[in-house]
Amino acid sequence: MSIVVVGSVAFDDVTSPAGSVKNVLAGAATYFALAASYFTQVRVVAVVGDDFTSEHEQVFAKRRIDTRGIERQTGLSFRWGGTYGENLNEAISNFTHLNVFEKFDPKLPAEYADSDFLFLANIQPKLQANVRRQMRGVKLTGCDTMNFWIKGAREDLAETLKLVDVLLINDTETKMLAGESNLPRAAQKVLAMGPKALVIKHGEYGATIFFRDGAFSIGHHPFRAPALPIESVVDPTGAGDSFAGGFMGYIASQEELNREVIKRALFYGSVMGSFVVERFGTERLQSLTREEIDARFQIFRELTHLR
Amino acid sequence: MSIVVVGSVAFDDVTSPAGSVKNVLAGAATYFALAASYFTQVRVVAVVGDDFTSEHEQVFAKRRIDTRGIERQTGLSFRWGGTYGENLNEAISNFTHLNVFEKFDPKLPAEYADSDFLFLANIQPKLQANVRRQMRGVKLTGCDTMNFWIKGAREDLAETLKLVDVLLINDTETKMLAGESNLPRAAQKVLAMGPKALVIKHGEYGATIFFRDGAFSIGHHPFRAPALPIESVVDPTGAGDSFAGGFMGYIASQEELNREVIKRALFYGSVMGSFVVERFGTERLQSLTREEIDARFQIFRELTHLR
Repeated sequence: MSIVVVGSVAFDDVTSPAGSVKNVLAGAATYFALAASYFTQVRVVAVVGDDFTSEHEQVFAKRRIDTRGIERQTGLSFRWGGTYGENLNEAISNFTHLNVFEKFDPKLPAEYADSDFLFLANIQPKLQANVRRQMRGVKLTGCDTMNFWIKGAREDLAETLKLVDVLLINDTETKMLAGESNLPRAAQKVLAMGPKALVIKHGEYGATIFFRDGAFSIGHHPFRAPALPIESVVDPTGAGDSFAGGFMGYIASQEELNREVIKRALFYGSVMGSFVVERFGTERLQSLTREEIDARFQIFRELTHLR
Repeated sequence: MSIVVVGSVAFDDVTSPAGSVKNVLAGAATYFALAASYFTQVRVVAVVGDDFTSEHEQVFAKRRIDTRGIERQTGLSFRWGGTYGENLNEAISNFTHLNVFEKFDPKLPAEYADSDFLFLANIQPKLQANVRRQMRGVKLTGCDTMNFWIKGAREDLAETLKLVDVLLINDTETKMLAGESNLPRAAQKVLAMGPKALVIKHGEYGATIFFRDGAFSIGHHPFRAPALPIESVVDPTGAGDSFAGGFMGYIASQEELNREVIKRALFYGSVMGSFVVERFGTERLQSLTREEIDARFQIFRELTHLR
């Protein structure tokens, strides 16, 4: 089954203790699409400028990602520059040039309408809601957001949350959204806002999924997936989007949606997040094999499972 | 098999969002001993004042904990007062009165000499080393420490680390001890200082054990245990010591020391940590049953295990 992702396709300049790159293909929709492409057919809705060339088009084509929804405009694509220090948890933004992304008005190609799955990457909540409403037949919608919208567009976000099934955010975003410092209590408050499930990404500590009572008819007990202890993180950019790609991509690849599928999806999310940070930009995601992915899945299992 | 624990027996005044208690029996050795007592015979080495009465003695006796190594002195026992805010991760210390603990000089009763296991709770590293040297036949020594000694008694601590098998500390302590902000790299540096294994406690995110290459002949791959998402933490005091009690107590209860035993021990550590925070002081640890403990172990398994 196929999944539509709506979000940014961008070019990044990144500096980390491991080195420095310029103009690398990036953006939430790119990371998501590449990660999910190892599991299912992916269709992208985004906007790019003249700097998006056939070389970049090839990156998507090689992974058989449908790019008919990538709108071309005159001007430059979204560009971001960031620097990571020794503590790789947070980047210092050097610049954010929205360029053609500033007036992004996502348009779904008619050919995408039969997709059963949708992922709303981190864009203005109103745009997320618009896209969601354009896909009436969708079975499961995943959604990301960020502090900027939680603070600055809370009402729009509240409307969007009523339309999505799974929200994927981090600890800080969960606490801010709920106005509650205890994470499990914050999770319950977020679930009361609409989503059936909430995936909280803990960075180097993995992720936890919380369910609304009775959601998906699979009970409400939470489930935790670890992250891999990684000694050499090269570039943490896109880890969250790649996590979402693995998570949603795996779900979209399965016939049924049950608790076991969601648990394995959480592991696959962590797996994809663990790969992407090994190289700058999307490089690692461009050249994986399903065998490598499943071998790492096994490592995650051994990292956490008793006999 | 029996385990000796050396550390503080104290009385705490604790305030948290859940309420307030005064003069509750506490201290690292108390938390450790009670938690470990559900798995194995525990022997305590500590010092107390006149305020330690037969009522407190009974708390240990009920759990069949050997208190012949608890020295009685004239004066007051160690007393600590702390307040936890909404974010329960760290207490504000209101007072720390070392009292008779100030000149604590641990003496091992002759009857303790045949114990195979030893846990050095958080005391001056020189005292830890002295105790370790008094127990020549010990099979496995666990050790705790804190920022205060890492900063203020680094050389003494380095000597102690050469004498212990498993060090149990938290993320911040690991990074400070190693002078390294990447946790897996910091773990390798700490292991190079002496211990065969390092348990890093991540608070609400669980714990990871890292092994030195070839340690215990069980390979070097790390293992992670989760923590339970708890909505109502009443009093986080003693969580780390109770974790250590569950971890070391379970190991001491097993005939063999292999990777599976250590993995389960990490889970039992998390289990005991999850119980103690449900009530003030050691209350919850005084009245558990092994059935309750194993039922929660099952919950931890379901929280993390794929089919």
